[in-house]
Amino acid sequence: MADATFTFNENGSPASALGFSAIGVHAGFRPDPERLDMALVVADEPCAAAATFTTNVFCAAPVRVSREHLNEGAPGQPAYGCARAVVINSGIANAATGERGLQTARETCEIVGDAVGCPADEVLVASTGVIGQHLRLEPFATGVPAALAATKVAASPEERTAQGLTAARAIMTTDTRPKHGAVTFEGDAIGYPGATFTVGGMAKGAGMIMPNMATMIAVITTDAPVAAPDLSAALTASVNKSFNKVTVDSDTSTNDTCFALASGAAAPAGPAFAPGTPAFAAFQDALDALTTTLARAMAADGEGATRLITVRVRGAATADDADAAARTVANSPLVKTAVYGHDANWGRVAAALGRSGAQFRQEDVDIDILGLPVCRAGLVVDFDEDEALRRFEEPEVAIEVDLHAGEESATMWTCDFSHEYVTINGDYRS
Amino acid sequence: MADATFTFNENGSPASALGFSAIGVHAGFRPDPERLDMALVVADEPCAAAATFTTNVFCAAPVRVSREHLNEGAPGQPAYGCARAVVINSGIANAATGERGLQTARETCEIVGDAVGCPADEVLVASTGVIGQHLRLEPFATGVPAALAATKVAASPEERTAQGLTAARAIMTTDTRPKHGAVTFEGDAIGYPGATFTVGGMAKGAGMIMPNMATMIAVITTDAPVAAPDLSAALTASVNKSFNKVTVDSDTSTNDTCFALASGAAAPAGPAFAPGTPAFAAFQDALDALTTTLARAMAADGEGATRLITVRVRGAATADDADAAARTVANSPLVKTAVYGHDANWGRVAAALGRSGAQFRQEDVDIDILGLPVCRAGLVVDFDEDEALRRFEEPEVAIEVDLHAGEESATMWTCDFSHEYVTINGDYRS
Repeated sequence: MADATFTFNENGSPASALGFSAIGVHAGFRPDPERLDMALVVADEPCAAAATFTTNVFCAAPVRVSREHLNEGAPGQPAYGCARAVVINSGIANAATGERGLQTARETCEIVGDAVGCPADEVLVASTGVIGQHLRLEPFATGVPAALAATKVAASPEERTAQGLTAARAIMTTDTRPKHGAVTFEGDAIGYPGATFTVGGMAKGAGMIMPNMATMIAVITTDAPVAAPDLSAALTASVNKSFNKVTVDSDTSTNDTCFALASGAAAPAGPAFAPGTPAFAAFQDALDALTTTLARAMAADGEGATRLITVRVRGAATADDADAAARTVANSPLVKTAVYGHDANWGRVAAALGRSGAQFRQEDVDIDILGLPVCRAGLVVDFDEDEALRRFEEPEVAIEVDLHAGEESATMWTCDFSHEYVTINGDYRS
Repeated sequence: MADATFTFNENGSPASALGFSAIGVHAGFRPDPERLDMALVVADEPCAAAATFTTNVFCAAPVRVSREHLNEGAPGQPAYGCARAVVINSGIANAATGERGLQTARETCEIVGDAVGCPADEVLVASTGVIGQHLRLEPFATGVPAALAATKVAASPEERTAQGLTAARAIMTTDTRPKHGAVTFEGDAIGYPGATFTVGGMAKGAGMIMPNMATMIAVITTDAPVAAPDLSAALTASVNKSFNKVTVDSDTSTNDTCFALASGAAAPAGPAFAPGTPAFAAFQDALDALTTTLARAMAADGEGATRLITVRVRGAATADDADAAARTVANSPLVKTAVYGHDANWGRVAAALGRSGAQFRQEDVDIDILGLPVCRAGLVVDFDEDEALRRFEEPEVAIEVDLHAGEESATMWTCDFSHEYVTINGDYRS
């Protein structure tokens, strides 16, 4: 960690950073009037923006439009520019909707731009919900002005905090709980005396259901002064360490979108954080802490999950080997059902390692489950099964592997595989 | 298909080809005396042998020993040579057992060699069952001579057929039914007038449970005259089209072993089938028909399966793209749970295609499920949901994709993902 003090705020959200408002409302995409279904994040001024999108060939219309607004040349290229607002609806994914869907996403940005007072291409848009259905514009037409008006009358910090939490609720689909937070750090030790910087955010994602092509959506705001290209680099690095290390159903989810906006409002007079400086390092650390927290929350809230599983592989010959080994273990239905069954079944971990493509010798491998050594030098170790069962009562299950083939390491987060997962995904129409 | 007539025999097994005996017995690896737990396949004379093994780094001792006996230089290299017998036990996998496990596998081969009257290195060995436990030699010491004696007193074809079926039962673990068959073709049109050739076989495999590192084992015998290198090439080609296209839990199973033995007994005077001739083509077709039948039976008997799923992708730009697209769809827990829920959920198929790495444009993709067009040009198609529900009553569910990106195609077989899968794999210790 950089040379700064970090504070985590569990009630944080995109509304936490100076220069931003965030709110969730019921706009009318969902039939239940009690259910929030639209989130709006608005910056007081145009600000630096960046995003990461995954590269699924089947991508939803809002992903295409947001890419255009951030000047992304091709999927996977850095996407950054200037933005003033982010609008997200839940209930309908606006995916597999062809030209009409693209038009809807563009008109959505125009509605937001008209209300906020900015060009439509300074609006970023995301949708999550059912595929193959057309998204109506009416809920945006009424919901966006109402949401914006509500943010303007929220005077107290308490009101703003509460509004930010409604934004996190409005983007939920099969999530059982909202995912949000903020990290704060002081500027004194990094060249910005007296300033306090905040990185706030929210995320949704629990699986790819209904079917929903935009499994995971996150919005991050910061009042640190960061230029768009640098924000893009920091975001990409952070997403690779956090959201891209989460798997619920056998791969990092498709059509993911993660937006980041930087207002600079916490240091209006100061220069932008320059890469390589202590200030930028502190910002990267705060961003990483937030995205990791949100990513772990997504894994823990995976569809039907009863346990968060953390898979750590060390001693890999290459970084790719470490990632492949950790990813293959985390994706194994057999490992995930074993955790559901409270079974410290290291043979399934070994089998997954063995087919991961990572280079190692089986006679070198050590495996710990829940802190208990269960495999040493590729051979079974007697362990206390009763103690293992007791440790399975914890909400998080650690699977730790040392391949003894090198110096590289990787961590993945996933969840167990339960009857409830099959019920959610197999029975939803019945 | 080659220019020959093929007949499929549902009661076929490795005992069907001339020059081979096959039997299953209760040797004592499992506690239940009613349960067969050892299969022995014996050739009357030393014969050409070949094998394919998957390349899991964690491989069981019998895999290593069989590789040595077939002169395999390195995992993935062609493995062939000369063999006289195959011995397989179920109940204990002899995996993660270190040097002692290798010694046990070697002594197993010696026991069989002594009984049959051949060098130990003409014996091939496989094990399936629980990992991390040592395999006892006593059951082999008593079971192998008893099994061999029983084959020698089986005089009638009916007795030999019945014995072959016991071999298929003896290698079962969580399989709910034995998997076996034989394909016969006449020699008249392929240069061997009056001769009838048979390719017989058995297989096991339903998932990777208990944990079992040797998920899938198959033994194929033929009385066609095929030299070992050619048998190896034919087997590798056939396995790539059949067993390697099966997925039950998210990849082709680990530490698979498929043995093939060719006695030449159906044409003792004739020359060996030469690659490029009609005879060899007929043999390859018969072998492919048998391995495909066994592979489909494995997928249909996947742990907890209620439906066989066949995924066919055509119109791919490359063969690798076709395989990746079909494999990603077949491995998707969301697709598999949708089939379990009788839901023609093409959005999940599209999402899997989109993340498969295959190159295509979403606006070109057509998808049929159970023969019903559900997606055309990347867009949703209205279809008769009641008709879809009726078709889901069939035992096999076809998912057909045309990427319209090229000329290549691939087929994968899998099964649906049920509550019972989670029960089998999550609850087995409880």
